[in-house]
Amino acid sequence: MEKSTTMVVFSGDLDKAIASFIIATGSAAMGNKVTMFFTFWGLNILRKEQYVPVKKTFLENMFGKMMPRGPGQLGISKMNMGGIGSKLMKKIMRDKNIATLPELMELAKELDIKIIACAMSMDVLGITEAELIDGIDYAGVATYLAEAEESQVNLFI
Amino acid sequence: MEKSTTMVVFSGDLDKAIASFIIATGSAAMGNKVTMFFTFWGLNILRKEQYVPVKKTFLENMFGKMMPRGPGQLGISKMNMGGIGSKLMKKIMRDKNIATLPELMELAKELDIKIIACAMSMDVLGITEAELIDGIDYAGVATYLAEAEESQVNLFI
Amino acid sequence: MEKSTTMVVFSGDLDKAIASFIIATGSAAMGNKVTMFFTFWGLNILRKEQYVPVKKTFLENMFGKMMPRGPGQLGISKMNMGGIGSKLMKKIMRDKNIATLPELMELAKELDIKIIACAMSMDVLGITEAELIDGIDYAGVATYLAEAEESQVNLFI
Repeated sequence: MEKSTTMVVFSGDLDKAIASFIIATGSAAMGNKVTMFFTFWGLNILRKEQYVPVKKTFLENMFGKMMPRGPGQLGISKMNMGGIGSKLMKKIMRDKNIATLPELMELAKELDIKIIACAMSMDVLGITEAELIDGIDYAGVATYLAEAEESQVNLFI
Repeated sequence: MEKSTTMVVFSGDLDKAIASFIIATGSAAMGNKVTMFFTFWGLNILRKEQYVPVKKTFLENMFGKMMPRGPGQLGISKMNMGGIGSKLMKKIMRDKNIATLPELMELAKELDIKIIACAMSMDVLGITEAELIDGIDYAGVATYLAEAEESQVNLFI
Repeated sequence: MEKSTTMVVFSGDLDKAIASFIIATGSAAMGNKVTMFFTFWGLNILRKEQYVPVKKTFLENMFGKMMPRGPGQLGISKMNMGGIGSKLMKKIMRDKNIATLPELMELAKELDIKIIACAMSMDVLGITEAELIDGIDYAGVATYLAEAEESQVNLFI
């Protein structure tokens, strides 16, 4: 029987995003089916870097403006120092030829990792499909749970 | 065989508490047995909103006063801005008719989700049974682990 | 068949470190095989408390100086108040005769819990083997995943 790995990516921190994609691509490279369910701040990882004009309420607009748009704007969970920590970590990873988050996300696509954006969280944070990267699915917690029940490794990140 | 979901709720952030109860009630609605083990800051989710006079040491009293009492006082893990972010998120969820945390907790009770407060964490934080909501169990990590070993989905939130 | 528990310890917060070792030692005491995979900030839990002179780049040196060295310097994830919260939590635990983190780590060793430091994270943060406590293993995510797939309980902390 095919083995599988599922994870809920709740965090939108760069370091946790990197960890989740390293585990996900590592598992897929071992031949496992992998599903990543992005919810709450994790949705920011999936946002397009460019601004997408979408009609929003005042609050949705405010949240949208304050939250990072894609990997390039994510902070790290510790020692972020207003973004300096995040920049330094990215520099170190480039210098050491360690795969960056955009590269890991590209690899995830090549390895057929299923990326699901949580529809309810999108509603709460006022994020629309037009603002997220292409090639992903949209679903609710029941879809995640159905896959999680059958998988060997489940993580909440 | 009956399937089951277990989770350790370590975080006392509103957004993570909402995520944990959405996963828990979703799983229970699918017919699974669900156990939530609340530890450390997660205990604050289970605190009664009203002040309960209990004899405490100086330090226990200080921790008790500084920590939020129940869903109404929880902050969110990002962009809390001294409670403004938390209030805005609650407003958005009400406006969109998304279940609030107290409603999700009520639903969890109706769905017979087992809620366990970690006895050791209660001791560390100086929280007594009288201060927590009714209808919950008290146990240690061995009880959690026994259930976790038999379950298909385990999460640490 | 022998049961097993695996966890990724990503966080370097004292409270989460304590939770991870309580779950780990609890599981090992129940007869399970336990593997803890320390990555990113979690590596700080494994650092020797004394300064170890190692040749580093400027950035590695800076990260190394800013990050806590071992259990004694870890902060807590909430109400740390520049270290006061961490000190108070340790005092409360000593007063109540609850095992401290160094004691839990010693117990983990006696219970043959396998502690793995993530080699890639060590590279990113510029942490060398000489700076970490003795008796641990060094490996990558594939090693963790191979164990996680066979285990009943997987947690990301």
